[in-house]
Amino acid sequence: MDDVRFIDLEKRILEDNDALAGEIRKKMADSGTLLLNVMSSPGAGKTTLIREVLRRISGKIKTAVVEGDVESRMDAEKIAAMGVPAVQLRTGGECHLDAAMINAGLEELEDYAPELIIIENIGNLVCPAEFDTGAGLSVTILSVPEGDDKPVKYPLMYSVCDVMIISKCDAKSLFDFDAELAKSRAKKLNPNMRFFEVSAKTGEGMDELVDALVKRVEETKKGR
Amino acid sequence: MDDVRFIDLEKRILEDNDALAGEIRKKMADSGTLLLNVMSSPGAGKTTLIREVLRRISGKIKTAVVEGDVESRMDAEKIAAMGVPAVQLRTGGECHLDAAMINAGLEELEDYAPELIIIENIGNLVCPAEFDTGAGLSVTILSVPEGDDKPVKYPLMYSVCDVMIISKCDAKSLFDFDAELAKSRAKKLNPNMRFFEVSAKTGEGMDELVDALVKRVEETKKGR
Repeated sequence: MDDVRFIDLEKRILEDNDALAGEIRKKMADSGTLLLNVMSSPGAGKTTLIREVLRRISGKIKTAVVEGDVESRMDAEKIAAMGVPAVQLRTGGECHLDAAMINAGLEELEDYAPELIIIENIGNLVCPAEFDTGAGLSVTILSVPEGDDKPVKYPLMYSVCDVMIISKCDAKSLFDFDAELAKSRAKKLNPNMRFFEVSAKTGEGMDELVDALVKRVEETKKGR
Repeated sequence: MDDVRFIDLEKRILEDNDALAGEIRKKMADSGTLLLNVMSSPGAGKTTLIREVLRRISGKIKTAVVEGDVESRMDAEKIAAMGVPAVQLRTGGECHLDAAMINAGLEELEDYAPELIIIENIGNLVCPAEFDTGAGLSVTILSVPEGDDKPVKYPLMYSVCDVMIISKCDAKSLFDFDAELAKSRAKKLNPNMRFFEVSAKTGEGMDELVDALVKRVEETKKGR
């Protein structure tokens, strides 16, 4: 059977994706743009949190958003309604964004030359973690109602992210959620993970989060 | 280019899966067993709700559970601790359960001959909807904190399910969630969808849900 050619499609797809993601990362570094990939379960509050961040940094940082959704353009419309340039990527069934999709989104934003581009990935804790988007910073949001066991059950997501944001902290009294346990579980998968605890509704923790983001955007610009 | 052979791997995989799912469905019908596929986002409360159902039907219905997880065996251990036979399927990265995995799980339960087998699928609103498990009834859980827009954003899930359970209803006061809107959005995708609104914590709606499930198990047995 030595003449059988074995083609590992998954491996090839991931290698091609990694190569393009590397190109995107280099391009972003060259232009001093922070590309931020936001991932979470469906309904963890990605859009709400992104909107709250945009509200607080508007005027300070030139920002654009790339929205990924299986269907609908609801989220991009919500962003555009704030006067922030938004590109909607409709995957039509695909469960993640890959580097080629991001590249297409970035081309749409080239003329605007943002300092910060936020990717809102598909709501999914499994597949988006497998595909490098070329982002300079990857963030996962874990909402209090989801439970503190998610890092144990979806470890790859927490391994590939630099930052974990615990959202919907205003709901802590209603749910059996141990934030310290969630953080220690994530830290086992990525010892360098940074944590924020926020509520977009009450504003809890938002100043700290936005300050850290602004600082990172400034650093990325200087690194140019 | 007429001599080029085009192999649509995705189509072939789904066709093979559908064929095996059909065999499972026939086998379940022949033995009068209800195979119930439970799907949702991560953290919507699948395990909690399944445990609450098990607590209420124990002694009435001979039940077993097939647990799907990317990693960990936490959920199967929680079920087994209740004295209910549980099989943990660890996918090791795969984002959904397919018919072959279910078949392997069912083989483990053959000697026990359950009347009801509950599949807890991977927490994911995208990929599990694409793979028929051979279940006689497919259920999706939407938790109040996730928001009422999920049927618009993940339409396939709501198209393939027979039942939608709105969970964590005790948290309604804290979240901007319109149950009627969520239901009408799901109904557009599947006009025959049945709805339940429950809270495993307060017990709200649990009697109605359990009664309907027991009735369905009885009907499946009679259909044998």
